Amino acid sequence: MSDTLNQLAAIIAARKGADPATSYVAQLFQRGLNKILEKVGEEAVETILAARDVEQGADQAKLIHETADLWFHSLVMLAQLDLGPEQVLAELERRFGMSGLDEKAARGK
Amino acid sequence: MSDTLNQLAAIIAARKGADPATSYVAQLFQRGLNKILEKVGEEAVETILAARDVEQGADQAKLIHETADLWFHSLVMLAQLDLGPEQVLAELERRFGMSGLDEKAARGK
Amino acid sequence: MSDTLNQLAAIIAARKGADPATSYVAQLFQRGLNKILEKVGEEAVETILAARDVEQGADQAKLIHETADLWFHSLVMLAQLDLGPEQVLAELERRFGMSGLDEKAARGK
Amino acid sequence: MSDTLNQLAAIIAARKGADPATSYVAQLFQRGLNKILEKVGEEAVETILAARDVEQGADQAKLIHETADLWFHSLVMLAQLDLGPEQVLAELERRFGMSGLDEKAARGK
Repeated sequence: MSDTLNQLAAIIAARKGADPATSYVAQLFQRGLNKILEKVGEEAVETILAARDVEQGADQAKLIHETADLWFHSLVMLAQLDLGPEQVLAELERRFGMSGLDEKAARGK
Repeated sequence: MSDTLNQLAAIIAARKGADPATSYVAQLFQRGLNKILEKVGEEAVETILAARDVEQGADQAKLIHETADLWFHSLVMLAQLDLGPEQVLAELERRFGMSGLDEKAARGK
Repeated sequence: MSDTLNQLAAIIAARKGADPATSYVAQLFQRGLNKILEKVGEEAVETILAARDVEQGADQAKLIHETADLWFHSLVMLAQLDLGPEQVLAELERRFGMSGLDEKAARGK
Repeated sequence: MSDTLNQLAAIIAARKGADPATSYVAQLFQRGLNKILEKVGEEAVETILAARDVEQGADQAKLIHETADLWFHSLVMLAQLDLGPEQVLAELERRFGMSGLDEKAARGK
């Protein structure tokens, strides 16, 4: 699992009913799925361009910033559709043979 | 931090020197940054389309699958540029006032 | 208007009923809108990457090729939804004060 | 060839040296290739979403608008790299066996 992504998903979920005038996340939810998906697409393109910049010697900070934006807006998209990072991370664990359950059991000992 | 993403980044890094004939990740590294970025872009578009499908009643499995693909290829991109999820997750923690350090200290008690 | 784009739209429309086994365009129509939109997205990303390559000194042929792919798949998308380039070109003419009608009249003199 | 796209490319080229305070195109050129490519990516995503909306019964005007934006920003990208629509249209003519030269000769008779 992911402590950071799960905590962030909880923060995002808590803003679902917040005032759009005071919360960017609440504003995204209010504007609806298309607006959220536009942001996912935009951030993917900005990530791609920032990666090319790093390859040519630019500072890594912008790429980290854009990738954070991309992951963050993916979480908003999942929340809008009543999903969360736990399903995506479980899928990755399954694919790569990372046994989350075994690990939790091991830590529980 | 993120247990799953950090573990997955370790798996990806370990395949950097693997035989491209037997590892998809090794093949991506060999084909280079443009190929990896094409995949990031493709998976972003497939995620967007799958999200619209879920909104119209389709099964959520495809969206989870595509989002996993998007995050996975972002990790390959970061690895290609000698970065990892820890920097991106730290940026998200910083932005949202999630004090990773405090938390670890709290759990340590 | 655009002679080339309009002629190409006619070629695309003529393949709507063709055998998917022998025509790439017929195959795209058969696979449906999501598949066509995936291609639009993919070609946009490949165009973006090729433009960065040209900026760094790469040959222009790849960028021309990718932009052609992008415009071509936009035409397939329009055809799938019973639209054509003439509406898009009319919108551009309107925006930029390019009076297609006046011009044709002028040439007719 | 394309009368509209070629005329529009001429309008775009003429704004290369214009005052960014009064011309959106001049502003794009001044901000540079990355900004132009961000716009190409954004408009591709907005086109994709508008196409899905049309499939579900929405008015076609938005899709035509977004496709016009996508083609327009592709032209700005080409101009920034000293290319134009004539090369892209020639590539499409070549691919689809549309002999522009023969046709002009035929019309000349």
